[in-house]
Amino acid sequence: MAGANGSAAAEAAARRVGAPTNPMATALLTDQYQFSMAYAYWKASKHADRAVFDLYFRKNPFGGEFTVFAGLEECIKFIANFKFTEDDILFLQSVMPMCEDAFFDYLRKTDCSDVEVYSIPEGSVVFPKVPLMRVEGPVAVVQLLETPFVNLINYASLVTTNAARHRHVAGKSKVLLEFGLRRAQGPDGAISASKYCFMGGFDATSNVLAGNLFGIPLRGTHSHAYVSSYMSLDEIPDKSLKSKDGSRVCKDFVSLVKEWLQKIQLADSLCGVFGETNQSELAAFASYALAFPTNFLALVDTYDVMRSGIPNFCAVALALHDLGYKASGIRLDSGDLAYLSIEARKVFRTLEKEFNVPAFGKMIITASNDLNEETIDALNKQGHEVDSFGIGTYLVTCYSQAALGCVFKLVEINSRPRIKLSEDVAKCHDGFQVSIPCKKRCFRLYGKEGYPLVDIMMRESEPSPKAGERILCRHPFLESKRAYVVPQHVEELLQCYWPGTSNKPRVELPSLEEIRGRCMQQLEKLRPDHIRRLNPTPYKVSVSAKLYEFIHSLWLNEAPVGELQ
Amino acid sequence: MAGANGSAAAEAAARRVGAPTNPMATALLTDQYQFSMAYAYWKASKHADRAVFDLYFRKNPFGGEFTVFAGLEECIKFIANFKFTEDDILFLQSVMPMCEDAFFDYLRKTDCSDVEVYSIPEGSVVFPKVPLMRVEGPVAVVQLLETPFVNLINYASLVTTNAARHRHVAGKSKVLLEFGLRRAQGPDGAISASKYCFMGGFDATSNVLAGNLFGIPLRGTHSHAYVSSYMSLDEIPDKSLKSKDGSRVCKDFVSLVKEWLQKIQLADSLCGVFGETNQSELAAFASYALAFPTNFLALVDTYDVMRSGIPNFCAVALALHDLGYKASGIRLDSGDLAYLSIEARKVFRTLEKEFNVPAFGKMIITASNDLNEETIDALNKQGHEVDSFGIGTYLVTCYSQAALGCVFKLVEINSRPRIKLSEDVAKCHDGFQVSIPCKKRCFRLYGKEGYPLVDIMMRESEPSPKAGERILCRHPFLESKRAYVVPQHVEELLQCYWPGTSNKPRVELPSLEEIRGRCMQQLEKLRPDHIRRLNPTPYKVSVSAKLYEFIHSLWLNEAPVGELQ
Repeated sequence: MAGANGSAAAEAAARRVGAPTNPMATALLTDQYQFSMAYAYWKASKHADRAVFDLYFRKNPFGGEFTVFAGLEECIKFIANFKFTEDDILFLQSVMPMCEDAFFDYLRKTDCSDVEVYSIPEGSVVFPKVPLMRVEGPVAVVQLLETPFVNLINYASLVTTNAARHRHVAGKSKVLLEFGLRRAQGPDGAISASKYCFMGGFDATSNVLAGNLFGIPLRGTHSHAYVSSYMSLDEIPDKSLKSKDGSRVCKDFVSLVKEWLQKIQLADSLCGVFGETNQSELAAFASYALAFPTNFLALVDTYDVMRSGIPNFCAVALALHDLGYKASGIRLDSGDLAYLSIEARKVFRTLEKEFNVPAFGKMIITASNDLNEETIDALNKQGHEVDSFGIGTYLVTCYSQAALGCVFKLVEINSRPRIKLSEDVAKCHDGFQVSIPCKKRCFRLYGKEGYPLVDIMMRESEPSPKAGERILCRHPFLESKRAYVVPQHVEELLQCYWPGTSNKPRVELPSLEEIRGRCMQQLEKLRPDHIRRLNPTPYKVSVSAKLYEFIHSLWLNEAPVGELQ
Repeated sequence: MAGANGSAAAEAAARRVGAPTNPMATALLTDQYQFSMAYAYWKASKHADRAVFDLYFRKNPFGGEFTVFAGLEECIKFIANFKFTEDDILFLQSVMPMCEDAFFDYLRKTDCSDVEVYSIPEGSVVFPKVPLMRVEGPVAVVQLLETPFVNLINYASLVTTNAARHRHVAGKSKVLLEFGLRRAQGPDGAISASKYCFMGGFDATSNVLAGNLFGIPLRGTHSHAYVSSYMSLDEIPDKSLKSKDGSRVCKDFVSLVKEWLQKIQLADSLCGVFGETNQSELAAFASYALAFPTNFLALVDTYDVMRSGIPNFCAVALALHDLGYKASGIRLDSGDLAYLSIEARKVFRTLEKEFNVPAFGKMIITASNDLNEETIDALNKQGHEVDSFGIGTYLVTCYSQAALGCVFKLVEINSRPRIKLSEDVAKCHDGFQVSIPCKKRCFRLYGKEGYPLVDIMMRESEPSPKAGERILCRHPFLESKRAYVVPQHVEELLQCYWPGTSNKPRVELPSLEEIRGRCMQQLEKLRPDHIRRLNPTPYKVSVSAKLYEFIHSLWLNEAPVGELQ
């Protein structure tokens, strides 16, 4: 509960940090039971008890062994702006008529000025069980943050990881375009997808609003509708085009295109493979080139890629070349992408030689039909000539695993450690459903070759691991799994992003470009067998000997003793 | 392109219809290539060509044979508010520096006042290939609407259908709660999920903001963290509770709870099945009951359902009963839900008899652990005592199929029909990737028993089918598939929701409750074999004989003729 000073500090913080991207990310964006609990805490005078919650996940997504952490910036913006308007209060009163008025007065004064948030930096590679964030503060307030934080982290981390996996399978040299706007969960599902796919290694998006909000580069070409909206070349009213250097004007670009089409059809090196092409398509391409002569990119599969799309495109591209322009390339959106890209490349190379057009063979080929990790991998195995992949549905919906199971668990209250057990005994045994109690510090230990070796969680009171000093790393639940590690380098994982009323130094939120850079760098630093698609090696996550003993004593203490009858 | 009058009309419409739910649903929320095309159309003086687009999908989701159409209201709000701000224009100029200034002047004046939208009513059961919406207007403007419309319809229809499928498998008598906020695609992924799950037949949501925005009932209980935040009964400072009728005050509710726990432990009819229970849990339950005596609902699986959660809950519930209150019930969030619900029910019934507490046996049992259609079906087959299902992840992410493939295809321009073929020959043959050309009217024909028999698409110029008159319904692509139908009742599917500058009467947008009612009613009217989970029968979608002939002549005309060599 913040006093007058708290509020002023909170307002200053909100100004500094900025508003959440989505204006709907307000203090009402939570589960109803969080308010019920807040009331129950308040009623029991327990609302200001100092609680520590860990936000973590239990299993890497997509059958992989790594996850990229994302969503931190939106969480910090959320708490910086966390407060209840009078309208919010009226609504809450209407749905919780059994609550005393004084509780709503308490909510009116509530903000996040005495909450502390420690987090792994956004864009980091992270692993199961290790807290991504530790949130401390009055139990009633931190409880209200559970749902929005999990909401803001879950999809963000899932889709960033998905993007990173697509980048990994496509390879560094390919251009990756996010085309997911029409398949995401509504407007800001799409906007989040664009932001986090860029973070995970994509180069551009088709989503104009995301480009506007985050400065992500925009890309795209026309659609099939554009091609089929034309009937014939007569529909182009102004056929003139100035040459690139401005020195001359071609009065009839359309005739030039027709001449080139004839030359292609008669070219010796192509042995007459091209017959008659679709004239509506040719008109659409010519008209698009007149609008974008510096940037001509055509979708070539509206009628028939090899019989119509490719020769029509080449005729327009060669006509542009006559005027000093360089066409960008084509997009394939259906059919056998491996075969068609190879055939298209052959034609481009043949025409480069036949008509002596430098770099014509290197034209960009973009592919975009329901692509995902598997289809890109299959294309790679078959061989293809695609330079750029446009990926939508499978990327933004995270089709192969549509949710990451982030949880937010109480690990300490009023300095007393807490644990959550589970009804599922099997899950308890490998620790799957058991939370790791205590306020913890977490470290990543690096080996001689620069790779991270293991993450270790320790009790807050323990001394930090030191480079060159041997330390015992234990599996958190399995007694026999343990190893001594002598780290070459030690990195503390949780950093202070929201100091609350503590005097801890605050880490500034980095830019999206910086976060993207961190993500790329962290993935490169990871041992390749953790990241490979097939049978990746699990990265080790451990606890200190002291924390191990503590967890297990608490576990025995809390779990009921069975009775055999 | 709207003139001065158009703009005034547009402003009035925006006031009448209201703003989109998500403030980010603005005119920039589209794909970059829609702007490229708009420019190319404008450059070729083609931007005002009158175009007709159909929005439809190709395949029902989730292996089913029906889909519920949703998202219309948001589309109408989107176009009612469609305009570019000066900031939008500046941004577009910065990313499209090659475009002439006059184009941006055109965009400044652009709104949707001369667009017409015809649509199937929201909440209707719909089928593949039949247009859900027909959008007519200047080609450049309607093209800009493609991406936002598909975005607003796709997820809405998918998740509404998913909710309807969950309702169908759970049965009418069960209470269905949407708990998806933490797993959806960010804030408004979650808000859309709440809205459309309610539309598809859910009873309530846990999402407070969705409750606030749409008036959806709110439900939920406390979480595991609440239970583990307590240590002992000593932590409850004020132990007094007034009886429900206000006639007396119990000074020590906690002692009353303890007495009841002892009575349960010693109850003859339970043969001493209950031993010592977890005291932190007992404290949490007692304290929650003190906050919500009229509405006590407890999560019973934090430590051990049968050994601790159930007896603790019953002790608190019986103590409440002493004071005239009626406890609501329990929530199970892990373990074998069939077994635990049956065992819990047995205990409730035994205690009802043992202590003569009327209706104690009928307490509500809510289950909520990663539920989906399959797990509910499995629970039904095993037998269970669950009254209410709380469903999150699988519901809102549409885990089993995370996207519906809605498309938006040009079917006519300047009164000339257009068709989109496809590179995928196999898909062409069953018409999968081929659009059905022409501006069409669509009808649903009903049989004697009141079930819909078939949907039929016709050319606009054809006379409507009439009740009692025989009509030939043809498969759109397969020559031999056709049938005569004598409908008992004929329903025209596409209605005018946005008349543009036409004088057609406009259908008012119904309320969310009305749309939900329509959805429930339409699903009941459907023949049960179309809706069943296992091997459902496909519903027939047809075209008139005249449209059939027309499609196939156009197809032959546009498709290239192969050459065998």
